Amino acid sequence: MTTSSSTSLFIIGSGPAGLTAAVYSARAELQPLVCEGTTPGGQLMGTTAVENWPGDVSILGPELMTRMREHAAHCGAQYIEGSVTAVDLSQRPFHIVTDTQHYFEAQALIIATGATPKRLNCPGESLYWGRGVSTCAVCDGALYRNKSVIIVGGGDSAMEYASFLAKFTNKITVIHIRDTLTASPSLQRRVLDHSNIAIRYTSSVTEIIGNGNQVTHVLVHNQQTDTSETIAVDGIFIAIGLTPNSKLFKDHIACDKAGYIIQQPHSTETSVKGVFAAGDCVDPRYRQAITSAGDGCRAALDAERFLNENTP
Amino acid sequence: MTTSSSTSLFIIGSGPAGLTAAVYSARAELQPLVCEGTTPGGQLMGTTAVENWPGDVSILGPELMTRMREHAAHCGAQYIEGSVTAVDLSQRPFHIVTDTQHYFEAQALIIATGATPKRLNCPGESLYWGRGVSTCAVCDGALYRNKSVIIVGGGDSAMEYASFLAKFTNKITVIHIRDTLTASPSLQRRVLDHSNIAIRYTSSVTEIIGNGNQVTHVLVHNQQTDTSETIAVDGIFIAIGLTPNSKLFKDHIACDKAGYIIQQPHSTETSVKGVFAAGDCVDPRYRQAITSAGDGCRAALDAERFLNENTP
Repeated sequence: MTTSSSTSLFIIGSGPAGLTAAVYSARAELQPLVCEGTTPGGQLMGTTAVENWPGDVSILGPELMTRMREHAAHCGAQYIEGSVTAVDLSQRPFHIVTDTQHYFEAQALIIATGATPKRLNCPGESLYWGRGVSTCAVCDGALYRNKSVIIVGGGDSAMEYASFLAKFTNKITVIHIRDTLTASPSLQRRVLDHSNIAIRYTSSVTEIIGNGNQVTHVLVHNQQTDTSETIAVDGIFIAIGLTPNSKLFKDHIACDKAGYIIQQPHSTETSVKGVFAAGDCVDPRYRQAITSAGDGCRAALDAERFLNENTP
Repeated sequence: MTTSSSTSLFIIGSGPAGLTAAVYSARAELQPLVCEGTTPGGQLMGTTAVENWPGDVSILGPELMTRMREHAAHCGAQYIEGSVTAVDLSQRPFHIVTDTQHYFEAQALIIATGATPKRLNCPGESLYWGRGVSTCAVCDGALYRNKSVIIVGGGDSAMEYASFLAKFTNKITVIHIRDTLTASPSLQRRVLDHSNIAIRYTSSVTEIIGNGNQVTHVLVHNQQTDTSETIAVDGIFIAIGLTPNSKLFKDHIACDKAGYIIQQPHSTETSVKGVFAAGDCVDPRYRQAITSAGDGCRAALDAERFLNENTP
């Protein structure tokens, strides 16, 4: 351990939940430390125009997050580079270690680590990640104008990706493992009514093939007919769900089967007193910047109340 | 009834919850109608600088709400002037009547009617509302650094206000009408242990006095000694409770004892299917613009899903 310091409140994560918690807790003079994580600013840093942040008709995702980061800093929040690699939540003060070998003690903790899009885990995926393989249509769609793309998934996100990509290209195929889509009816309808979007049901991508630099083909297996086919594509958008970034905490606090951290009723407190959670790491359902921000505010107010009642 | 119209989604209220619900539902092409109520824009219209809306270091409350209103309109929301005076939620479509004698039918309803802080009802209070008179220490406390403030009330909120304000100033007096505090013991203790917070029992504020622009004094009457005293102050925080604006719905949907509308677990749905609630009318605890906005987003997404699944 190179250095150590102690704080009343440590916040893990710097997306809308973490930074809103930082704004509120800094304004309450709790002098929070915010560990920014592997993706400072969170998932919105990988987006372009955000059109549903209330009050801003259109704002770039990175700009919104930069504004939040500066706001929290203005209020007194301090930022820690790097990621948390270990925690000890068995007693207060909680112990936190980062990958920069810094060590912290905190009287209260807010976990706002977000969620990570799931991967296919098939051959070629890692090799061509960022070279034809993407999990963000909004981020990368414009790179595929008039090119051939596939979308993997059948839920809301997959349908949203398909509708979005249809702005750029009419060579779109949705690959879905089940025999029916699971997206909401209105989102399904927009895709099904689109004459240029093909859907392959009961199918999955079993290999991603390229020329060493860039994706050129995918191998798709149809479970029903037990046949495989090689399809020429330029891009693959994976929309098969998210994994909450809670692995580090699973042995310490209660999570559900999918790994989402469980909050107490009408509170953001976790199963450990003094540890609060907010944002996509607790929310499989809504996952919006504004809902995460609201949750981050709640966590800060809950942490403040906890510290008021439990500080020696 | 002068006119009638029908809509898929009717939103009652135009604070952060109602307008965020409007942004999200309009973007989902639900063409929401938003009844603005007696205070279009909600409680923030009565504030000055808002310093805890994430991403904006400081923004005037009315400006933030105007931006949200324009955002929702840009997305396709339509506004209805006036207030709702009667509803029939016994079957779908729901029936809604306004004080402008308009009649509406809606397949889904979002209630975002907010809450009304209880007032002192003394001379000067209305004149200096938002100009020294506040009902939110978390929102406005930082504006009173090293200034002289009084807090009216003796319950949990009043104690939290006092503790919070003590971060900024040591010129704090609590004015309480009874001879003992009613707050929880731990919250009381922190205030009582604080050498810089004075408490005046059996006292009430009978007049708020200012220079035309800003509060300068209050007149305080002590019932026990039957004496009055003028005290120089910069700010008055009224913490004598809120009344959720739910009276109209009490016979139709489940509310708690205090009148707050009850949401289903992990949802914004009320006890009536297709009726959702968001913001201060459901939330006695956090009551922030950002938490209400997050809740409004959730209500819109819940309503969209409901309509997708239940529209003939």
